[in-house]
Amino acid sequence: MSNPLISSGYKPIVLVNMTQPKRRSHWAWGWEHKMPSIEERHRLAELLEGVLGIKAGEVEEAVPIQAVELPGTELKATWLDTTNDARIRHTYGRSWPDLMRGFLGDFGPAPLAVATPSSTEELEKVYDWAQDSGVKVQIYGGGTSVVGGVECDPEYPTISLDTSNLSGVLEIDKTSRGALIAAGAFGPDIEDALRPHGLTLRHFPQSFEFSTLGGWIATRSGGHFATQRTHIEDFVQWMEVVAPCGAVRTGEYPASGAGPDMNRVFAGSEGTMGLITKAWMRLQERPRYKAQASVKFAAWNDAIAALRAIAQSGLNPANARLLDSREALMNQVSFDGSNILVLGFESADRPLAAQMERALEIARDHHGQCDGAVYIDTNGPGAKESERWKSAFLDGPYMQSALLTMGVFADTFETAVTWSGFERLHNAVIANMKDVLKRTCGRGFLTCRITHIYPDGLAPYYTWVAPMPTRDRSAIEVWKTIKDEAMKTLRTNGGTITHHHAVGRIHRDAWHQEAGPHSIAALDAMKSSFDPKHILNPGVLL
Amino acid sequence: MSNPLISSGYKPIVLVNMTQPKRRSHWAWGWEHKMPSIEERHRLAELLEGVLGIKAGEVEEAVPIQAVELPGTELKATWLDTTNDARIRHTYGRSWPDLMRGFLGDFGPAPLAVATPSSTEELEKVYDWAQDSGVKVQIYGGGTSVVGGVECDPEYPTISLDTSNLSGVLEIDKTSRGALIAAGAFGPDIEDALRPHGLTLRHFPQSFEFSTLGGWIATRSGGHFATQRTHIEDFVQWMEVVAPCGAVRTGEYPASGAGPDMNRVFAGSEGTMGLITKAWMRLQERPRYKAQASVKFAAWNDAIAALRAIAQSGLNPANARLLDSREALMNQVSFDGSNILVLGFESADRPLAAQMERALEIARDHHGQCDGAVYIDTNGPGAKESERWKSAFLDGPYMQSALLTMGVFADTFETAVTWSGFERLHNAVIANMKDVLKRTCGRGFLTCRITHIYPDGLAPYYTWVAPMPTRDRSAIEVWKTIKDEAMKTLRTNGGTITHHHAVGRIHRDAWHQEAGPHSIAALDAMKSSFDPKHILNPGVLL
Repeated sequence: MSNPLISSGYKPIVLVNMTQPKRRSHWAWGWEHKMPSIEERHRLAELLEGVLGIKAGEVEEAVPIQAVELPGTELKATWLDTTNDARIRHTYGRSWPDLMRGFLGDFGPAPLAVATPSSTEELEKVYDWAQDSGVKVQIYGGGTSVVGGVECDPEYPTISLDTSNLSGVLEIDKTSRGALIAAGAFGPDIEDALRPHGLTLRHFPQSFEFSTLGGWIATRSGGHFATQRTHIEDFVQWMEVVAPCGAVRTGEYPASGAGPDMNRVFAGSEGTMGLITKAWMRLQERPRYKAQASVKFAAWNDAIAALRAIAQSGLNPANARLLDSREALMNQVSFDGSNILVLGFESADRPLAAQMERALEIARDHHGQCDGAVYIDTNGPGAKESERWKSAFLDGPYMQSALLTMGVFADTFETAVTWSGFERLHNAVIANMKDVLKRTCGRGFLTCRITHIYPDGLAPYYTWVAPMPTRDRSAIEVWKTIKDEAMKTLRTNGGTITHHHAVGRIHRDAWHQEAGPHSIAALDAMKSSFDPKHILNPGVLL
Repeated sequence: MSNPLISSGYKPIVLVNMTQPKRRSHWAWGWEHKMPSIEERHRLAELLEGVLGIKAGEVEEAVPIQAVELPGTELKATWLDTTNDARIRHTYGRSWPDLMRGFLGDFGPAPLAVATPSSTEELEKVYDWAQDSGVKVQIYGGGTSVVGGVECDPEYPTISLDTSNLSGVLEIDKTSRGALIAAGAFGPDIEDALRPHGLTLRHFPQSFEFSTLGGWIATRSGGHFATQRTHIEDFVQWMEVVAPCGAVRTGEYPASGAGPDMNRVFAGSEGTMGLITKAWMRLQERPRYKAQASVKFAAWNDAIAALRAIAQSGLNPANARLLDSREALMNQVSFDGSNILVLGFESADRPLAAQMERALEIARDHHGQCDGAVYIDTNGPGAKESERWKSAFLDGPYMQSALLTMGVFADTFETAVTWSGFERLHNAVIANMKDVLKRTCGRGFLTCRITHIYPDGLAPYYTWVAPMPTRDRSAIEVWKTIKDEAMKTLRTNGGTITHHHAVGRIHRDAWHQEAGPHSIAALDAMKSSFDPKHILNPGVLL
C-alpha cells in the first residue's frame, strides 16, 4: 500500500480547512470551506504553468451572496420560500456557464420561489396549484447538473421544487438485498444508513456528496466503477413517480419480460414526466476483498488494445481507468510520457488473485509494464488506505471553480463509442479541440481518460484547460464556441452526446439529432399523457 | 462425460425420424417429422401413468390441413398471398388454445392474406396500403408466441405481415464484437452465420429453432442462461424500427446516458409501435471452457438458500437450474425425492475451476451433495457431448403437442419474484393449482424449476399436467379456468405476469393491472405517435 498511484489514482491538491462551518457555496462547486485558499490557488497556478504551460491570472473573488440583486417576485404562500437566499441557491447547477454567472453575481434566471414538499400529498398540492395558476415547476435535486438541468426557463413564471425533504432510507431487505430510498436522499446519507447492515448501493458519481438518488435516476447517472452495471438505472428494482396525472409505481420484480420496461422510460426522463419520489434499489454486500494494480503503457494504442481485451474477457474489473500521458502528467502520476491503466477488482465473497493475475497477463501481452498487484482484505490492516481514491476523485471538481477565479477555463466532456469507432473519434476530438482552443484562447491543454469499458465499446472522458481571453460575461460566449465544437465533433464521429452527464438544456438539441424526430415526438406524446398541462421542467430534455 | 444428468440435464424422449421431409406442422409445435410416432406416444403414456399417475386416452390425430375450411377473402394484390395454406399457417402461435384449435381444424381467425415484404420500401408500401384501405396488420415472426401474440383480431379485416424475407446476418464487426442482423432471421441461421467467425449471440430461448431475432426483441425473450444478461434486449446495441410514421434508428453506442433508452421502449412493445427490421447485436466469443456439475438437495428450502447465496456471490454461473423433486422425477433425472441443481460455467478466456469450486462450496454449505464437477476444454475431446442439453431443451415443447393428441393437458407458466417473496408465492401456486386442477380435471401434477437467478430474486417456471375432462372445444374453457387461476395467483402474490413469455393477448389484462392505468395511457399516447391510424397488432399488449 505504499504506492500512492495504486492506492489513490490521483494526488489530492485540495487541503481541507476544517475550522470554517460546513456550508455549500452559492456559486462554486461543493462546500465553501473546501474551495482552495489563496495560497493553494497560487500553488495551483505554479503547477499549471510548470506542467501545462498555461499562465493563470490574479485570483479574483466571486460577488458575495449578500450583494446579489434579484428580480422581484409576486408569489406568496406559507409553503413557498421567496427569500433571496433560497432563490439564489436554486438558480443554477454547476456547468461552467453556471459557475461563471454565479461568480459574476448574475442570478437573473432565479426561480420566483422555492417549494420543498415533505410528502406525496404536499407534492400533489404543488402540482395542483401550479396547474391552476399557470406557473411552471422546475425540479431541483442536489443542484449538481452540468447540463443546465435545474435552471428555470425565463419564458415562464417558474418555481423551483426542492426534493430534499423527501429523504431517508425507508426500508431495508437483507434477504433480497434491497432498500427503499426516498429520492431526495444524498449519496453519503444513503451509504451511512446502509453501512451498519453491511450493505452498499456502491454508486459513486463524482457528484456523490451533493447529488440525490432521484437526480441520479432521472439523469441516468454513471458511477465510478468501470464495468457491468455502470449506470444507476441498472440498480433500480422499482420506483414511484408522482406525475401531474397521478402516481405511478413500477413492478416489484427482479426481472420481467412484460411490456416495455417503464423503469427505463422514467430513467433519463429528467423530471419531464413526473418526480421520482422513491425507488427500491438493488444493494450489494460491502466488498471485503480488493485487488489493485497500475500498468504503464508506452504506446496509447497498446493500452487501448489491452483495455479492449480486458473488456471482452468477461473478467469485469471494478476499475479499469486508463489515463493518457497528458492526463497522467496533469494528475502527477507519471512524468515520463507513459499512459497509466489503473486496474481494480472487488468482491464480498472471495479473494481476487485469479482475476487480477489474468487481467495483468492480458495487459502484459499488450506490452504493459506492471510491478504486481496489491491484495487487500478489508477485515485486515490497510483498509482505510484503499478508500483514498474516493476523496481525491470526489474533490476533483473544486479545481474547476478555483481555476475560474484565476481566469482559466477547465471543463470536461464525455461520450461512449464502439471499439471500432474510437480511433476516428479520438483523433477528431484532439484535432478539433486543438483548433478551437487555439482560435478562441490562443492555446489550451486537452487530456483523455477512459472511465468505463464495455464488450462493444468504451467511454472516453476529455478535460480541457485554457486561459480565458476575457474575465467577464463574454467568456461564456467563448465557452459556448468551444462546447459547440466538442458536441459537433462527438455527433459527427460516432459518439453519444453523453455517457453520464445527462441532456438538460445544453445537450438538448444534439440529443434530438441523436434520437431523431419520431422518437422525440413519441416522448412528447408520452409527456403530454403524464403532464397534460406541461408544468414540469419546460425546455429540459424535450 | 458419462453422467447423462450432468451432460444433458434432461433425458430426451423424442426420437428423430429423418426419413420424412423437414416441414413445420400446421398446428403442433415445430417440425412435423419430430412429432413423436404412435409407438413413442404409447411409450410416453406408460411413463405418464407410471410416474405421474395420469392416464392418457387413445391417440387421436389432428384434422389434416387439406380438410380445414376457411372464411373467404376479398383481398387481392400480387404481393398478397391468399392461399389457404399461407392463411392457415399464419393463424396461430403455439399457446395451448392455439394447439387445440389447430388440432380440431378450427382456423376461424385466419388472416385475410399474408404479406411478406423483402425490404423497408416494400414494408412501407404495406403500411400505406393498410392505412388507406382500413385493414389492420398483424406481425408474424416465427409464430411461436404462447400468449396470443400473432393471432388476428376478428373485429377487424386483418392481414398477417410475415418477416421471413427480412433475413440474414448483414454485417459483422469482430473488433467491437457485434453483428447487424435482419429481424426475420431464425435462431439457427444466426448461429450458423456467426460460427465461422468464432462468434455467437448465445441466446437460446426454448423456441430457438422457430423464432426470429425481431420476435425475440419485440417480446423481451429470455435465453437459456441463468444470470447476468438473461433477456435479449441486453444484447441490443441499436435497432431500426419501421413505424407507420416513419423509420427510427436508435444510437450506435455501447452505452449512453442521454434521455430514456428507446431500445428499452421498443423491446417489449410487441409490434405495437412498429416493426423491428434489424438490430445490431452484441456478440460473444464462442466459449471454449465449460464446467458442469449437478448437486442434490434433500430439502427444497436448502436448495433455494444455496441458489440465493450463489446468485448473490457475483459468481454468475451460465447455468443454475434447480429442478424440484417432481420436476426431477418427471424428467427422469432423480427418483429419490431429491431436488437437483444443475450448475454450469462457460468462458472463452480461461478455465473455470475457481468459480465452480467456490459455487460447489456454497452449495455444500447448504447441505448439497455433489460428486464433483466436469471440466471441458472444447478444443479437446468430448466437446459434442456438452451440447446435448441443447437438443433435449429445445425438443421439450413437442411433448405438449403429443400429450394433447392423447387427451392430456400439459402447459407451463413462469414469473419472477424477489427472494423474500418467493416462499409465499410458491406456496400459493402449489395450493391454488392443486385446487383448480382437482376442480376442473379431477387431478393434476405440478412441477417447478428455477430457470434464472438474480441478486434480488429468481424466476420460477411451473409445468402442470392433467387429464382433459373432454377432448373437444370445451377443453379450451377448462384451460382458461386453470390459466386464470395461475395468473391471479401470480398477480396477488408478488410475481410478474411473465418473466419471458411476453404479454400478447393472454396476459394483457393482467399486465395492465401490473403496469397501472397511467403507464398504459402513456404507452397508448406513444403508440398513437408512432402508429397514428392504429393499424399494427390491435389488441396485443395495449
